[in-house]
Amino acid sequence: MPTYTTSVGIDFGGTSVKLGVCRDGELLCTDAPIPTANFPGPAALIGEMAARVAKLKEKFPAIAAIGVGVPGLVDFEHGFVHVLTNVPGWKHVPLKAILGEKTGLPVIVENDANAMAYAEFRYGAGRGMNNVVALTMGTGIGGGLILNGQLYRGSGCAAGEIGQMSIHFDGVAGHYGNLGALEKYTGNQQIAEHAMRRYAEAHIQKSAEDCTPKKIAEAAQAGDDIARQVWDEIADWLGTALASIAWLLNPDAFVIGGGVAQAGDLIFGPLNRKVQSMLSTVVWERLQILPARFSNESGIIGNAALAADSLG
Amino acid sequence: MPTYTTSVGIDFGGTSVKLGVCRDGELLCTDAPIPTANFPGPAALIGEMAARVAKLKEKFPAIAAIGVGVPGLVDFEHGFVHVLTNVPGWKHVPLKAILGEKTGLPVIVENDANAMAYAEFRYGAGRGMNNVVALTMGTGIGGGLILNGQLYRGSGCAAGEIGQMSIHFDGVAGHYGNLGALEKYTGNQQIAEHAMRRYAEAHIQKSAEDCTPKKIAEAAQAGDDIARQVWDEIADWLGTALASIAWLLNPDAFVIGGGVAQAGDLIFGPLNRKVQSMLSTVVWERLQILPARFSNESGIIGNAALAADSLG
Repeated sequence: MPTYTTSVGIDFGGTSVKLGVCRDGELLCTDAPIPTANFPGPAALIGEMAARVAKLKEKFPAIAAIGVGVPGLVDFEHGFVHVLTNVPGWKHVPLKAILGEKTGLPVIVENDANAMAYAEFRYGAGRGMNNVVALTMGTGIGGGLILNGQLYRGSGCAAGEIGQMSIHFDGVAGHYGNLGALEKYTGNQQIAEHAMRRYAEAHIQKSAEDCTPKKIAEAAQAGDDIARQVWDEIADWLGTALASIAWLLNPDAFVIGGGVAQAGDLIFGPLNRKVQSMLSTVVWERLQILPARFSNESGIIGNAALAADSLG
Repeated sequence: MPTYTTSVGIDFGGTSVKLGVCRDGELLCTDAPIPTANFPGPAALIGEMAARVAKLKEKFPAIAAIGVGVPGLVDFEHGFVHVLTNVPGWKHVPLKAILGEKTGLPVIVENDANAMAYAEFRYGAGRGMNNVVALTMGTGIGGGLILNGQLYRGSGCAAGEIGQMSIHFDGVAGHYGNLGALEKYTGNQQIAEHAMRRYAEAHIQKSAEDCTPKKIAEAAQAGDDIARQVWDEIADWLGTALASIAWLLNPDAFVIGGGVAQAGDLIFGPLNRKVQSMLSTVVWERLQILPARFSNESGIIGNAALAADSLG
């Protein structure tokens, strides 16, 4: 269902806030990022966001809503930010109320991984599907769920934490003491450490910088057997988690973004084989494992879409 | 929201079909079970179901709908039974169409674990909640999901297969080759085998009959340390899966039925501790782990409720 509402999407990251104007999934314009460190606290930063929106509204008078995605826990209903771990001073901030008052526009506030999932569902790899599980793979692994055609937030707006799911009841402890946490196996740092170990076993010295997902992909493409093996192992771990989610939710698709997804067939090939090997025909037949369509712009597009769609 | 619709719930098991009449979660009457083996195929068995419903309707003329729960894969929308593994001859049966025609009543057909989840959500331990994950623990482990106040079926009506989720990427293979399948650790037979192993390690001979969930619970209550240890281990395995589901879905409650749940505090004590140890405060705070309210009658009540609520 297309929308003709013009809206602003705001992607609030750890170091900068990015803004853009969208209509029906199309990015009409992006604004220069706001460095969060330049603003001493929430009030000043929200003030700057409002000033930027006012400027954008001069250029796009049709702007009718604002969607903000934040890297942390949100009370969606009240647009209230509980806490942003990586942004000093952001604790108990009624972002929706303040930004709404300053701009005179309806505001929605969402978790960033949910916004990414929504962008892919509405305009990306999961378009036209009912049940989509989106993952963003980086330092950590975030996730967002579209179930029965709607963003599923859970009882405390905390759903979708795929990186914290366990793939081993006696495995490596995650941030919360959760044994076997997926992101302790397939987060970028853990991938680098694992690759360095595999190279060391073959008496090859590699640094962490040599073992980013990008570098391991390049090595594998150049025929490096160890790099290929590392991708197969990542596929085993990630595939175990995806298969569990598939048994539970029987979705149409997994949509995977972030550095790992950029390895293309190197990861999607073994990942598809692994997941298929763990599912019934019925669950597998309906399932696709897809790379995300959007990358850096998914926050802006997803938040803008959430804001536009919230106007009904 | 109460309903005043009277409906028939039919619980189609491997060996018998049970029928009951319900109104607003209350079981008004149950009928003698129909032994499936007495009927050579679907047509005859559906004929008997229709005859039973006609009899019940003489006594309860207000009966307005029928809900049938079956132990297998269903196309909910069309009320079509794909296959019932444990009932010979049940493959590609348009149950809704045939039973509807024979009785003149609206019919819904649902998977049995989903019906159990719905019974607990509507009238049992999960009443008044929005997001409920229900498990039935027996030979296998089935599950059903209520998300955003509705039964969630997934893209192929195959969601909720909690017993197939992996708790170990290199663990025991499940029925589908899925390594680490939960039910290969906490199904009744696996629990018995594990308990026998633990006793054998202490040079105590026990048979499988001595190691049913009921017997291990009695032993633990009588102060048997090995039996207590077995419950703690079951809690570790089951808790790992529940914590993963909680990270993914951030639900209000897990509702657990079946033999294992009847061990009471022996399982719910260590299970709560395990799950709490693996979650963030935000996810844990919202979560309850509850024994199911209904046992054998959950199929009849859940299917009757689904049928009544479908009339909306």
